[in-house]
Amino acid sequence: MYTITRASRRFPRRNLLPKLYARSLTSLTSSDLDHFASFLPRTSIISTMAPFSDGPEAIAQYNADWMGKYQGRATTVLRPRTTEEVSKIVRHCNERGIGLVPQGGNTGLVGGSVPVGDEVVLSLGNMSKVRSFDPVSGILVADAGCVLESLSDYLQPHAHLMPLDLGAKGSCQIGGNVATNAGGLRLLRYGSLHGSVLGLEVVLPSGQILNALTTLRKDNTGYDLKQLFIGSEGTLGVITGVSILTPPIPRASNNVILALPRFENVLPLFGEVKARLGEILSAFEWLDRGSYDLAVKHGQGRALSEDEVEGAACFVLVETSGGRGEHDEEKLTDLLEFLLSADTPLINTGVLAQSPAQFSSLWALREGVTEAVSKEGKAYKYDISIPLSKFEEVVNMTKERLKNVEGVLGVIGYGHVGDGNLHLNIIASSYTPTIASLLEPWLYEHVSSLNGSISAEHGIGAMKTHALKYSKDEVSIEWMRKIKEMFDPKGIMNPGKVLLPREGNVMGEGEKEGSGTARAQE
Amino acid sequence: MYTITRASRRFPRRNLLPKLYARSLTSLTSSDLDHFASFLPRTSIISTMAPFSDGPEAIAQYNADWMGKYQGRATTVLRPRTTEEVSKIVRHCNERGIGLVPQGGNTGLVGGSVPVGDEVVLSLGNMSKVRSFDPVSGILVADAGCVLESLSDYLQPHAHLMPLDLGAKGSCQIGGNVATNAGGLRLLRYGSLHGSVLGLEVVLPSGQILNALTTLRKDNTGYDLKQLFIGSEGTLGVITGVSILTPPIPRASNNVILALPRFENVLPLFGEVKARLGEILSAFEWLDRGSYDLAVKHGQGRALSEDEVEGAACFVLVETSGGRGEHDEEKLTDLLEFLLSADTPLINTGVLAQSPAQFSSLWALREGVTEAVSKEGKAYKYDISIPLSKFEEVVNMTKERLKNVEGVLGVIGYGHVGDGNLHLNIIASSYTPTIASLLEPWLYEHVSSLNGSISAEHGIGAMKTHALKYSKDEVSIEWMRKIKEMFDPKGIMNPGKVLLPREGNVMGEGEKEGSGTARAQE
Repeated sequence: MYTITRASRRFPRRNLLPKLYARSLTSLTSSDLDHFASFLPRTSIISTMAPFSDGPEAIAQYNADWMGKYQGRATTVLRPRTTEEVSKIVRHCNERGIGLVPQGGNTGLVGGSVPVGDEVVLSLGNMSKVRSFDPVSGILVADAGCVLESLSDYLQPHAHLMPLDLGAKGSCQIGGNVATNAGGLRLLRYGSLHGSVLGLEVVLPSGQILNALTTLRKDNTGYDLKQLFIGSEGTLGVITGVSILTPPIPRASNNVILALPRFENVLPLFGEVKARLGEILSAFEWLDRGSYDLAVKHGQGRALSEDEVEGAACFVLVETSGGRGEHDEEKLTDLLEFLLSADTPLINTGVLAQSPAQFSSLWALREGVTEAVSKEGKAYKYDISIPLSKFEEVVNMTKERLKNVEGVLGVIGYGHVGDGNLHLNIIASSYTPTIASLLEPWLYEHVSSLNGSISAEHGIGAMKTHALKYSKDEVSIEWMRKIKEMFDPKGIMNPGKVLLPREGNVMGEGEKEGSGTARAQE
Repeated sequence: MYTITRASRRFPRRNLLPKLYARSLTSLTSSDLDHFASFLPRTSIISTMAPFSDGPEAIAQYNADWMGKYQGRATTVLRPRTTEEVSKIVRHCNERGIGLVPQGGNTGLVGGSVPVGDEVVLSLGNMSKVRSFDPVSGILVADAGCVLESLSDYLQPHAHLMPLDLGAKGSCQIGGNVATNAGGLRLLRYGSLHGSVLGLEVVLPSGQILNALTTLRKDNTGYDLKQLFIGSEGTLGVITGVSILTPPIPRASNNVILALPRFENVLPLFGEVKARLGEILSAFEWLDRGSYDLAVKHGQGRALSEDEVEGAACFVLVETSGGRGEHDEEKLTDLLEFLLSADTPLINTGVLAQSPAQFSSLWALREGVTEAVSKEGKAYKYDISIPLSKFEEVVNMTKERLKNVEGVLGVIGYGHVGDGNLHLNIIASSYTPTIASLLEPWLYEHVSSLNGSISAEHGIGAMKTHALKYSKDEVSIEWMRKIKEMFDPKGIMNPGKVLLPREGNVMGEGEKEGSGTARAQE
């Protein structure tokens, strides 16, 4: 869809090293490096320490997240080529109490893949082989370091596709996708990774290799351990291999943009669309008027004429993917006719893509919102799950709360209605403590009161550790901690991410000035 | 599809009380009963102990599994009405070290839902309310004790359906379905419960209530704890509530039976069918010739004429479910034309159902195999996952191994090809130690060598604890144990199921005479 570029440094980079981890974890020494060099080739070690003494530029990209918000102080990056090498590295770090940060494409949006201090970065990029693919079952087994887009390219001649797609696909790696439970653009159709990931190979903090890399669609033999690692953001172990069910490529795709007179029509519309398109519905994306206008203003496309936009409160982009184009088009056309011929129509107008170029330009409008936002000003971005019926209310409450606040340029909402996932953006001329303190914890408290999620698809990382309590109750957090301590008693795996140390909130206060700029998954 | 009836007692009932558990667990006393009576009404307690002194017939059904293979010695059944009551029961049993068996519809096939000794049965049948349903998102929240079919009936007017369907649907409960990670007839289309279950409410062995009953399609905030309970067979806690994503009811369904000249054609056929039917394919079921002939012999239907059956090595039943009947029929007809017009056709013949009655009769043939098997003789039944390409080989190897063995009447194979799930049945005039010892551990070893699963959908229960090692390696089993011990340090939850006690295999030898008679999920 779009490629990831490293954004300019919008945030002052901060050193996030939690004091408690600093006390319990050990810094790397030259004798540790000697040990790694005993089984890794020179090309698998990047280190600013002697005897390697690589320049700081060699290690810079591993210490910085792509938003330019977080800055680690790692001296050393290890790039193993095999699961056994990963195991040796992890075992040694565990014995010595050295912190480790597993890193895939480093495209995460919550600071989960860069060190908070001087942990060793364990980059999976050298493990990038497809291990097997069975065209009959569609089951693909791949090294964790395979780039998502490379896997899509690999599957193309076999007429299969990856069950997930994100903006970061050109850089992100399948292991990182699984570790962060990436959502993205195909979730409505193909479901979450908890369903499509069939097996994992994981190096545990002990150095043990957990071989749960089954290629079976069904296996009811005991606890499904792999599920724990899906979405654990590298805090329980290092994913080294992934077995995933890939669907056949749909033979035809189409889309339509609908202009709605009122937000209240979105839900009944979603019901009609689901019922009438059924199994070919593959996306149902919502944009409020502000999002649409902003995208048009910044040249992200103009899907509808001014007449057609007149009186529209919001817009919906519907995509179909099916086995036969003429069947899908007939269903779409009938849907439009039904919608327009109703006594009280749910839509003002609808435009059906007539060509691949029009198909792309409708998507460009939806996907261009993020770009448009960044052209307009600084953005406070929230990725929340709330009931579909509350989307507009939350946007309006936020507008109301920030009315007349200096520097606020606008509040817009858009997102994956089909998944209940709202992207709420507050655009300002600059980041200010006033705006930040009006937004948090107020917004998280409101999301919590709606039994929503403060992170629908981006994860917790280092950014939202302080806010976990708004989505998970004390019992859940307590058991998460127990699981963490069971797998990783020394706390070496991705310290400072997901869960705060038990003894106190040492990172909370510094983390409240906003949620960064993020576009990879939106 | 069919209803569950309690089979005649084909197996001598055995008392399975593991000695190790007997040492560590406590039997219920009258003061425990007094305690339960302090917060439960009389109607929620069934007990043969004073002061209740119910007759043995009141408790019999809770002590026996429906196959009539396992027999518990519970004196007391508790039937709480609320999650808080469950919590109080569990907390007390944990303090006192009293074993507990959570029981749903008691339709399991591996002895997982009846006591192995005198544990208390915790029946969820009194918790049977739908808590909420959102017709827009399709998300249903229900008490664990809701019967699967009741939920289907509830959803019908809302034009939604449950994402799973099994033979036992008239008795099985959604909590039990989730606890056993039930598969069934809709898995190919709607995926596994790991994907469709969105949230769970679980009473942990400590008595704590884990409220992970989210109604969000996406929530990336920490470890996905609920996944551990899906398929844990009541050994980690008591599921009391389920949030599940339900799909819209397809507006049209159709099916076709295909006769194939050779097994080797099944896989290319599956590829063609997947590619040409795409999103409307909802079942792809395979029967070998023996299964077909047996079903016909025992009056389970005759889908094809003798001419059509001539020269067929095996059969495939394909079902479609889609949004518009005429589109689906066109795709099916085109598929048949393509298959029959090929230079070297993959099929000999194909019969498309022309009416709802024909649709049902094609399914009756597939579903009637189990019934036919039970009419033919005693059955050793295996529910395994192996690569699709190995289905026939495993059937043939088993035939070869049992050739000329006294009492063996036949070996047949059928199952969910789409899921890689083979049901292998060995039919004999009676159960004999010779046959049993020829089958196990040989078959499990072979499944293991194919990286398969010894239990695709039935679970481990009490029946297959000794065989877990054939599907899971030592590292996996060790971590399962650690998880069990973390959640349930006293081992009160469903003792003797899934994992054997660490100190030794006290149940292994008695368990090797076969895998029972089972039809609910096949």
